[in-house]
Amino acid sequence: MRRLLWLWCVILWVCLAGGVDGQVRHELPFPAIPGYETLKCDFHMHTVFSDGSVWPPVRVDEAWRVGLDAIAVTDHIEYQPHEEDVPTRHNRSYELAVGRARQCGVLLARGAEITRDTPPGHFNAIFLENVDPLETDDLVDVIKRANDQGAFVFWNHPGWKGPELGRWTDVHTQLYEKGWLHGIEVANGETYYPEAHRWCLEKQLTMMGNSDIHGPDLRLRNTAADHRTMTLVFVTERTLDGLKAALKAGRTAVWLQDRIIGRREWIEPLFYASLEVEPPHLRTNNALWVKMANGSAVDIRLENRGQLGPAELVLPADSVTLVRIAGRNLDGPLALPYTATNFLVAPDRSLDVTLRIPE
Amino acid sequence: MRRLLWLWCVILWVCLAGGVDGQVRHELPFPAIPGYETLKCDFHMHTVFSDGSVWPPVRVDEAWRVGLDAIAVTDHIEYQPHEEDVPTRHNRSYELAVGRARQCGVLLARGAEITRDTPPGHFNAIFLENVDPLETDDLVDVIKRANDQGAFVFWNHPGWKGPELGRWTDVHTQLYEKGWLHGIEVANGETYYPEAHRWCLEKQLTMMGNSDIHGPDLRLRNTAADHRTMTLVFVTERTLDGLKAALKAGRTAVWLQDRIIGRREWIEPLFYASLEVEPPHLRTNNALWVKMANGSAVDIRLENRGQLGPAELVLPADSVTLVRIAGRNLDGPLALPYTATNFLVAPDRSLDVTLRIPE
Amino acid sequence: MRRLLWLWCVILWVCLAGGVDGQVRHELPFPAIPGYETLKCDFHMHTVFSDGSVWPPVRVDEAWRVGLDAIAVTDHIEYQPHEEDVPTRHNRSYELAVGRARQCGVLLARGAEITRDTPPGHFNAIFLENVDPLETDDLVDVIKRANDQGAFVFWNHPGWKGPELGRWTDVHTQLYEKGWLHGIEVANGETYYPEAHRWCLEKQLTMMGNSDIHGPDLRLRNTAADHRTMTLVFVTERTLDGLKAALKAGRTAVWLQDRIIGRREWIEPLFYASLEVEPPHLRTNNALWVKMANGSAVDIRLENRGQLGPAELVLPADSVTLVRIAGRNLDGPLALPYTATNFLVAPDRSLDVTLRIPE
Amino acid sequence: MRRLLWLWCVILWVCLAGGVDGQVRHELPFPAIPGYETLKCDFHMHTVFSDGSVWPPVRVDEAWRVGLDAIAVTDHIEYQPHEEDVPTRHNRSYELAVGRARQCGVLLARGAEITRDTPPGHFNAIFLENVDPLETDDLVDVIKRANDQGAFVFWNHPGWKGPELGRWTDVHTQLYEKGWLHGIEVANGETYYPEAHRWCLEKQLTMMGNSDIHGPDLRLRNTAADHRTMTLVFVTERTLDGLKAALKAGRTAVWLQDRIIGRREWIEPLFYASLEVEPPHLRTNNALWVKMANGSAVDIRLENRGQLGPAELVLPADSVTLVRIAGRNLDGPLALPYTATNFLVAPDRSLDVTLRIPE
Repeated sequence: MRRLLWLWCVILWVCLAGGVDGQVRHELPFPAIPGYETLKCDFHMHTVFSDGSVWPPVRVDEAWRVGLDAIAVTDHIEYQPHEEDVPTRHNRSYELAVGRARQCGVLLARGAEITRDTPPGHFNAIFLENVDPLETDDLVDVIKRANDQGAFVFWNHPGWKGPELGRWTDVHTQLYEKGWLHGIEVANGETYYPEAHRWCLEKQLTMMGNSDIHGPDLRLRNTAADHRTMTLVFVTERTLDGLKAALKAGRTAVWLQDRIIGRREWIEPLFYASLEVEPPHLRTNNALWVKMANGSAVDIRLENRGQLGPAELVLPADSVTLVRIAGRNLDGPLALPYTATNFLVAPDRSLDVTLRIPE
Repeated sequence: MRRLLWLWCVILWVCLAGGVDGQVRHELPFPAIPGYETLKCDFHMHTVFSDGSVWPPVRVDEAWRVGLDAIAVTDHIEYQPHEEDVPTRHNRSYELAVGRARQCGVLLARGAEITRDTPPGHFNAIFLENVDPLETDDLVDVIKRANDQGAFVFWNHPGWKGPELGRWTDVHTQLYEKGWLHGIEVANGETYYPEAHRWCLEKQLTMMGNSDIHGPDLRLRNTAADHRTMTLVFVTERTLDGLKAALKAGRTAVWLQDRIIGRREWIEPLFYASLEVEPPHLRTNNALWVKMANGSAVDIRLENRGQLGPAELVLPADSVTLVRIAGRNLDGPLALPYTATNFLVAPDRSLDVTLRIPE
Repeated sequence: MRRLLWLWCVILWVCLAGGVDGQVRHELPFPAIPGYETLKCDFHMHTVFSDGSVWPPVRVDEAWRVGLDAIAVTDHIEYQPHEEDVPTRHNRSYELAVGRARQCGVLLARGAEITRDTPPGHFNAIFLENVDPLETDDLVDVIKRANDQGAFVFWNHPGWKGPELGRWTDVHTQLYEKGWLHGIEVANGETYYPEAHRWCLEKQLTMMGNSDIHGPDLRLRNTAADHRTMTLVFVTERTLDGLKAALKAGRTAVWLQDRIIGRREWIEPLFYASLEVEPPHLRTNNALWVKMANGSAVDIRLENRGQLGPAELVLPADSVTLVRIAGRNLDGPLALPYTATNFLVAPDRSLDVTLRIPE
Repeated sequence: MRRLLWLWCVILWVCLAGGVDGQVRHELPFPAIPGYETLKCDFHMHTVFSDGSVWPPVRVDEAWRVGLDAIAVTDHIEYQPHEEDVPTRHNRSYELAVGRARQCGVLLARGAEITRDTPPGHFNAIFLENVDPLETDDLVDVIKRANDQGAFVFWNHPGWKGPELGRWTDVHTQLYEKGWLHGIEVANGETYYPEAHRWCLEKQLTMMGNSDIHGPDLRLRNTAADHRTMTLVFVTERTLDGLKAALKAGRTAVWLQDRIIGRREWIEPLFYASLEVEPPHLRTNNALWVKMANGSAVDIRLENRGQLGPAELVLPADSVTLVRIAGRNLDGPLALPYTATNFLVAPDRSLDVTLRIPE
């Protein structure tokens, strides 16, 4: 009984020290787009239950702190370097994290990383019901079992051993043709895979961007200059089901370093929802002055495709930029053709946009 | 002619180096309150035209950068330590800054600091039409002339030479009774003047908080931890007239360090507009979990006046805090009585608030 | 064989992602004192092997990064909340961290936290050879066994359940009189225990200050404003033996928040080694101007006990402060009596110092 | 008399607000090189006395704060855009700043910018005795007069209107052959002039790097990521004479962004003085582990020219990097050939170095 008392004291101590209440979160200001809410997500990360170095709830705390709405903890099924100390239990990282996720209101998908030599490489399955059945030899069978559970399956970091080993093989074709492969990581950690970007465009696969983080995330917040690689998912409801539906429908954009990568269909409305141009607050004989507010978390980089307006513009994240448009006869609303150079609709192609300046 | 050419080159050089286009502004997230827009203002600052050390447009650039909506440049009329190099011209700091203000869309009031030995001390007159007539000996006459121009007049840093010298004297009574004194600085720079706070409450004078900055402002942005002392003004229109009307009606709050100082009438709606409490996202047997978003630029510090909820809460500026409310039978909406300890309605009194947690 | 190949690939991947080479360390600029090198140490922290949330080598990486020279990982022996997933093995956190410690050149002491209800509370034993024998019921016996291994034993956070429960009891007397208790934490995490400070002074026990960190350390570096609580140990050689000898001899100081806490014998030379005062670079009729360099990681706060020099001085960490000494007849070297208010030689007593200004 | 009293009060107020005492300086950790002290200098900046926007002593305060040892305030002689408000007086910016410079112990050279259409462009003369005689039409005559005063004369930002206008012309040859032109800015603000770099190498002219700052410097300190462009001058004594002698002897290096630019003669010893490599603290069968300390303010970027050691290395400024050297038979001291890619000895050539690892 006395032993119980001190145990409670220790538990209280840990709670106070570790901080359950009062944790601070900095929302990431990516706007909603017409018809959809924008969730900030990371679907690839590890814990001590495979080769990561943190206890599972740490991944939830990080997500909350840096403004993520949804994550999946995806420990390797086959690669268990800590098994001498942490016996293999494939569902434990989810089970140990989910309580904390509910407290924080962070959506947590049960996931796992299916780990094969390259090619064919590694695959994540998320929205699983049970990871255990996935521990079986034949890769096609594993992916089938994941699909039987209704999982969303994507190919991870396809080129991380070079383009030769990271090529699209017969197994990929097989999985793709059966409809069991739904997406590919076009970005993993700090690396961009242009070939994966092309495959997603050609084959209507969902573009994913994830951190693949193994150690603790030291960030107190995500900033334009230093953030986790993540997937923006455009959902109709903020639930795991809403998320899965959006992923299966391909409604994503990837935020990697200073770039937004995605299908034009999704990054074009994201661009326009991010930018607010006020009517000019000053008109002179030969210029007008406008405030352009970038309400998103990514800097917007613009190159002029026309005559009017600055040749280049940088609109830093989450701030307002003063822009002077020089020229004669600037009455009425203006429509300036620009290219948003860091919004990639294809590996070699940026998003063309029109800056509309109201009257 | 050739001389002209190189002059243009130099001007171009200066423009490019000094940056006219593309300057970045970080808005200060103080919310509007019902019926009014909230302008962030600083009505006390100096330039090389009295004892400051910057050229007047620098004050506008700073204001733009750190998220101020309106400023007044208020050089001393009588104290002209640079006059050997910068001959006295009382309207010049305004004239040299106003073009830049129009470009930036920052409201600039013409102002001046009337500088007398203490007591009676220093007074700022803002919204002047012409500073020159204010250079005359008799203080009452000066203040009358400012009022004749429709100016808003306030007493600066009343206690900066100590409470004895900073006392309310007959001259103050005279000005006050004629209706020529409209406000007092309850905060100047990093100093709070509780006596001034009391006078404003008793006499229905407008509470002002200003920087009185002399050197360059090195801040890239204002943060909760490091910001200019400023006056929040609740306006019905974002113009100089709207500003003057609001000041004359006493619709202000002062942001000094980690405190909001003002009349309950104004800081209570500011508090409620700053705080958003979501419906609980998790209910357990003995607790519920709520997200509280503080959308303002100031941390909110709360002490519990009731039974339910944490004894103390800090809701950091511009972020979301996870709060756990422990207890039984927590169904239905809750109303938790707290005190916002850093919202001062009087020198020794904080704002009592109710945290309403929706169902 | 093929399986081995991909395993190697995964390992390589983890190494590249997690970063073995090239990790950056910011040294903490606490100076050596005459006769001793100054090591920055933290002897109280947890991992997943008790109630912490990181894999053991993370503690070494953190130590390296933030400028620590020596640590002990001290998982609870009796409190094993993760045992369902991480079976109890008391020596594993040391064994898993020591390779990384050797790579980084961080000294790692094998340690453990002996965890009893309060009173008598928790005790750390460090420089152990084997933790297993310490898992036994009788506290006195446990501490004896630790001493039999040559360990250094200290009482942790004595007052964390309040002064009543945190009192000095018969067991403490018994351990102390046998010479088995060598130190007490006067600071643990962000808390200072003045009573412990007094006990250390009275009983010649070693003053300890430790982080007791459970989660990941998010700091990229330690700064004066935000750092781990730590123990500065004054050693004659940078080895575990040197460290143990210094601890047993009581040669420590504690860095907690903005304070240095310790015996005068050690914090006085630390003060003088931290401060460098140059000869005045300017002498006028009524003043001289001096540069004072604080080469330590802690701000130095000074109050004047004499006539000459500023009434108060703050010399920020790792920077140079310009000081003006006003007065007549300031020829020759000066000796100004000050108190270093944040250098505590006893709970209510700061260190008196003399600022010597060379000619 | 009463008027005098309040004037004193205002002056006191300004002093307290503006802060004379207690200003903090962060030294820039560029090391001395054998035989010389390393001074951090900026010899090109403006005030309200030409087209700058700060009062002259602000330039001294900035220099002190960000770790500069010597500056010259170099207002344009011919370009006086503020003359309507600040009547032309060419020596005033020096005269108004020199008192503050003496208080801070910052070396202040009297300077001026001779401003001609391009070509031939702008020239700075520093270490002048009197600027007034330089206000005369003929450029050659102006430069002669500067030389008659013993000035050091350099050509500013030679290419800022493009390579065509920024070319070396007959006037430059004339000045050079008479020995009246001593240096060229190879860097001005954020721009590097490779052509100027070549001219300096060919003609034994001194390489200069300066900020040409016009507005306030908002930096609280210089960092590797964000710093003023500056000239490092290798002096035998820390005086204006020592500085002039060093400049005339060409003993400089330029710090621009992440690069050190200069003659091999000077940047090679700077490199070796910046880098400290400890003896390996761990040797295994197939690797050794070394700490490399970069004690300078610039990151060091290295590319391997040999077999042993990492292919690339970045040693961040003012910190220690852990380096693993893999290989067999690594006994004895090692000498690893690398190139310091960001140490430029010519526009297209980096400094070759040897990393010596002690036994």
